[in-house]
Amino acid sequence: MTQSLAVQDFYPEGFSHCLGCGRLNAHGRRFKTHVEGEESVTRFTPGSHDTAVPGFVYGGLIAALIDCHAMATASAAAVKAAGHDVGEIPSPRFVTASLKVDYLKPTPLGPELEARGRIRERSERKAIVEVTLSVNGVVTAKGDVVAVAMPNTMDRA
Amino acid sequence: MTQSLAVQDFYPEGFSHCLGCGRLNAHGRRFKTHVEGEESVTRFTPGSHDTAVPGFVYGGLIAALIDCHAMATASAAAVKAAGHDVGEIPSPRFVTASLKVDYLKPTPLGPELEARGRIRERSERKAIVEVTLSVNGVVTAKGDVVAVAMPNTMDRA
Repeated sequence: MTQSLAVQDFYPEGFSHCLGCGRLNAHGRRFKTHVEGEESVTRFTPGSHDTAVPGFVYGGLIAALIDCHAMATASAAAVKAAGHDVGEIPSPRFVTASLKVDYLKPTPLGPELEARGRIRERSERKAIVEVTLSVNGVVTAKGDVVAVAMPNTMDRA
Repeated sequence: MTQSLAVQDFYPEGFSHCLGCGRLNAHGRRFKTHVEGEESVTRFTPGSHDTAVPGFVYGGLIAALIDCHAMATASAAAVKAAGHDVGEIPSPRFVTASLKVDYLKPTPLGPELEARGRIRERSERKAIVEVTLSVNGVVTAKGDVVAVAMPNTMDRA
């Protein structure tokens, strides 16, 4: 299967500075989210400093990854609802209303992390996204995220 | 009132590498949590790269701040329950079981952020911590965090 284009690469230029996933943030993580069938996937390999306690991934990084991944999942769903594939039109920007992360077990530091997302429900302005975070096929955290279309009041670009 | 000592400065040396609040992580945020009466406070001023969309603080940073702040609040409560003030004994390390953040409104980037925490309930092994995040006195996010004493299985130090 051909790899789909990354949702974040089509966020409008004025809204591509996110520390987590913006392509224009020089200090950012540059998370990239791809559509795979009914799911979305972001893969990221933490560095040695991304630690909570030695040997394990920092929970704040996991929360950030789940957050950006869920916003991109909501954006991809909006693109699809408009009758397009990612990359054919700008990816609309969503912001987080609520983020819930359950840390089921410690996440070992070293291997690639895989966040997978699925839309539980959505309307034009809002989406609820379920995310699983796994390492080597073992789920270590789950996310439940409410995304809302970015309000115009946040447009200072 | 004399500023209390920071909880994180008394985490055991082997567990002081957290990307959020570890004093020994060269790339970390170095969040510092202080006890103020019945509450705990962490103050942090984001940098220009800590953005979600221009003009606003990255939600992943807010989640990380609330997370580390809640763990330190649980730790301080355990120190107090043992009959001590922070700094008199090592601060016990807690890890996050569940993190819930409600983003009530966009958090402007620039001013200092203030996270304030309060223990809702606790036992020897677990604490539930309520956190408010404010900027210039305006609450922009709320956190609800479940902290558990770090299991021995995470001790790889």
